[in-house]
Amino acid sequence: MCVDKSHASEDAAGVVVADQAGAGVAPSPALIEDLVNANHILFDQGVVDAFGHVSVRHDHRPDRFLLARNMAPGRVGAEDIIEFTLDGDAVNAEGRRVYLERFIHGEIYRRRPDVIAVVHSHSHAIVPLSVSKSTRLRALFHMAGFIGQAAPVFEIREAGGDSTDLLISNNALGRALAEQFDASDIVLMRGHGSTVVAQSLPQAVYRAVYAELNARYQLEASRLGEITYLSEGESRTAAQNIEAQVHRPWDLWVEQAKARRGRG
Amino acid sequence: MCVDKSHASEDAAGVVVADQAGAGVAPSPALIEDLVNANHILFDQGVVDAFGHVSVRHDHRPDRFLLARNMAPGRVGAEDIIEFTLDGDAVNAEGRRVYLERFIHGEIYRRRPDVIAVVHSHSHAIVPLSVSKSTRLRALFHMAGFIGQAAPVFEIREAGGDSTDLLISNNALGRALAEQFDASDIVLMRGHGSTVVAQSLPQAVYRAVYAELNARYQLEASRLGEITYLSEGESRTAAQNIEAQVHRPWDLWVEQAKARRGRG
Amino acid sequence: MCVDKSHASEDAAGVVVADQAGAGVAPSPALIEDLVNANHILFDQGVVDAFGHVSVRHDHRPDRFLLARNMAPGRVGAEDIIEFTLDGDAVNAEGRRVYLERFIHGEIYRRRPDVIAVVHSHSHAIVPLSVSKSTRLRALFHMAGFIGQAAPVFEIREAGGDSTDLLISNNALGRALAEQFDASDIVLMRGHGSTVVAQSLPQAVYRAVYAELNARYQLEASRLGEITYLSEGESRTAAQNIEAQVHRPWDLWVEQAKARRGRG
Amino acid sequence: MCVDKSHASEDAAGVVVADQAGAGVAPSPALIEDLVNANHILFDQGVVDAFGHVSVRHDHRPDRFLLARNMAPGRVGAEDIIEFTLDGDAVNAEGRRVYLERFIHGEIYRRRPDVIAVVHSHSHAIVPLSVSKSTRLRALFHMAGFIGQAAPVFEIREAGGDSTDLLISNNALGRALAEQFDASDIVLMRGHGSTVVAQSLPQAVYRAVYAELNARYQLEASRLGEITYLSEGESRTAAQNIEAQVHRPWDLWVEQAKARRGRG
Repeated sequence: MCVDKSHASEDAAGVVVADQAGAGVAPSPALIEDLVNANHILFDQGVVDAFGHVSVRHDHRPDRFLLARNMAPGRVGAEDIIEFTLDGDAVNAEGRRVYLERFIHGEIYRRRPDVIAVVHSHSHAIVPLSVSKSTRLRALFHMAGFIGQAAPVFEIREAGGDSTDLLISNNALGRALAEQFDASDIVLMRGHGSTVVAQSLPQAVYRAVYAELNARYQLEASRLGEITYLSEGESRTAAQNIEAQVHRPWDLWVEQAKARRGRG
Repeated sequence: MCVDKSHASEDAAGVVVADQAGAGVAPSPALIEDLVNANHILFDQGVVDAFGHVSVRHDHRPDRFLLARNMAPGRVGAEDIIEFTLDGDAVNAEGRRVYLERFIHGEIYRRRPDVIAVVHSHSHAIVPLSVSKSTRLRALFHMAGFIGQAAPVFEIREAGGDSTDLLISNNALGRALAEQFDASDIVLMRGHGSTVVAQSLPQAVYRAVYAELNARYQLEASRLGEITYLSEGESRTAAQNIEAQVHRPWDLWVEQAKARRGRG
Repeated sequence: MCVDKSHASEDAAGVVVADQAGAGVAPSPALIEDLVNANHILFDQGVVDAFGHVSVRHDHRPDRFLLARNMAPGRVGAEDIIEFTLDGDAVNAEGRRVYLERFIHGEIYRRRPDVIAVVHSHSHAIVPLSVSKSTRLRALFHMAGFIGQAAPVFEIREAGGDSTDLLISNNALGRALAEQFDASDIVLMRGHGSTVVAQSLPQAVYRAVYAELNARYQLEASRLGEITYLSEGESRTAAQNIEAQVHRPWDLWVEQAKARRGRG
Repeated sequence: MCVDKSHASEDAAGVVVADQAGAGVAPSPALIEDLVNANHILFDQGVVDAFGHVSVRHDHRPDRFLLARNMAPGRVGAEDIIEFTLDGDAVNAEGRRVYLERFIHGEIYRRRPDVIAVVHSHSHAIVPLSVSKSTRLRALFHMAGFIGQAAPVFEIREAGGDSTDLLISNNALGRALAEQFDASDIVLMRGHGSTVVAQSLPQAVYRAVYAELNARYQLEASRLGEITYLSEGESRTAAQNIEAQVHRPWDLWVEQAKARRGRG
């Protein structure tokens, strides 16, 4: 497919953008494979359905990140991975449609140089917590210490007015969202979902899965009255010690993802 | 099977009706295939079980619509699709039993010339909302903007008295239901389920899936107290922009439906 | 295996009973096959797990019924079906262990000559309703009209004292339970589950599946406040008209059960 | 892999410990197979995910127990089973990483000589009950009589201070937890999960599965108001009589586990 690279053509079903920058050194194949696995795992674990996306920072160019083309995560292959600048400009889209919300990723990578991977999703227990006027997502079990004492909720009305489509569809909205990550590795997005960041793809996937579980348990426990949440010290210690074990679920999930798809 | 076409014979297990009108120009095979896929997807996604149905307006005759014979949606094949007039009279049933509730479809297509596809279902989170005296289904996340500020609930007692079987089993009940679609693309049916309409089959299927999710999230969020729903502007903008992407889940779901059934 | 037929030997893992009566005319093979299918369907639909059972009245001897030997329903084959008298005595167990609770079936068949099939289960939404001090299971959607205005709850403490194991493990308890069916086709059993009866195996299976769904929806809807239940007339009309279609889910479920087990 | 056996090397992803004691008489192969099956069943039933573990006391040396190496339970094979002393020292780890929380098992086996098997998990309905300030897990249906009138909740802050990672990662914490088993066969762990003990592997697995179901039903029933729980006598009688049938689910689950893994 050939597009006029000097103009982006946009339509309702995703966006075709012109490639704005030259591709440089290629990311390592192992990183691409991890990103493909991350897409499959998030689908298999019910964190994403046909929507949602996961990215990773380019391992040789910290000013670039990798993200699938506009498609359902469960079907992504290595050939679907596109390189982007932090502005969300595609480097090698070559006419393939890209995600409307790639600005989530670029702006977070810009603001948080320590972040290596980003997952954006609308998982089932997170959405209800994103719209509650009274309750904030908060760590209540050891697997989700990274959530801390009260996950911030991004209210898009403050940055985009009260008639948006709730999508982070430009750099300004991406920047507004990214600011919320100054004090947290997870941010809920009102009426939309959440975004989590981490220092590796396995950790980001782990966090997306266990944030959903924490939300589910919090919804359940709230039926019974008051809850004992993790203390600040417990959150910090649990995150530190337990996230050192993210290889265990990751290995299991990769194996399952491959088995389900007849790969490997 | 051979039936006397001058009389409808009705029994408890669906209805055999005489074909009332001549078949004219055939619908395009691609439309039939989409309708078969829509049946399978709705079953795979848990929107319908052995009950529920989906129809599409005939692509060459707007005064006709297509609907499977009386059977479980997950098992429908191209050979099971029957053509109906807007009165719900079968054109080519040839003795096959038809759905008791085909009047839902015919009367909506008559009243809403813009509607191309209709899904009727009893999905799990919709039924509880259909019987609540205090709460109306309302859009709370960006994927379900089409629900708007308060989905109408059809109370069959007003049109049919208080001892019906709750089914839309004749034209009068169909008309009463269809009137509720003047201001909404989704109508809940008290003690029964819901019906959604759309401008295409993929969009109708999308809406049935995400209406169920919105209902589920609303039930969950209601545990925690007050909810921030989408504003009117957000509902409208989100529906417009996000429903332009219905091809993404549709493609995924078609692929899954085919894989599960060893087709394609 | 050989047992002394003049004495029952009982142990913790089910019961071995001596065959008390001669087998007479054999039930029709089609009935046996239906009963095997019913066992598989109830497992596939999540109504039973390793526990729960389904029986059918002998089609040539109304004073006998058929029930699997003591085993998980999902694994039952034709060779596992045993014939019993209404007293719960085995006719052809030939040393195979039988269900401790076969008295549920025998005593209901005795008291309700119209009943042809019985399902006993502990499905997920029924158990919570069986222990609620304030709320009774009640029909709220058209698929479950047979539940009526308030399903009776059997309190075993009245018949067996307050230290039983809650099982219906003898004829006296069976009779006490069976009395509850004088005014209802479904009876909840406190802290245990439910039993449903019907005029055929497909109808009994249908009722067990949709009673569970009604219970689930009732639990969900109760979060939101007051509920509009089916009226008495609606319950009656819906049960009459919709249960005439039980062949539709039954056919689907049989097909699925066979596909999952590589049969047929 | 080769490790210096005189020093334990620890890192974030589990622990490598030096083998401290000589292996003596080997456990019987049938016990190993049961333990492998128990791992698979707990995964298949959703009691454990990539985390959680199950152990069994050595059948020839009551001062030893068997536990998988640090890995996801659903993938355990016979070659992954390691023998431990009651202090949690590995006998034949040979450099393989071991679970951080093996002290749960060792200290319970020490304190409760009658205990043969231990399951530690974070199942979905148990975690919410572990953090409720007002409600204790309590037997409400006949399958879970062993839970009794109010399961103890282990508060790790009392033994480990308020900044732990909530893991039972040393003998002192293990001892503190084990004390809670003096009066109960199940102990919830605040913000973490639960541990159940039993006189056999099938019974321990059974209890872990049905404790989760009881918790789920208790959460559901609590929506409706007051609950009739099992009486003390009912708990005791039900546990006694129904747990005598644990072979029934065990046999089913083993068959399923083997089918899913293409074994046997």
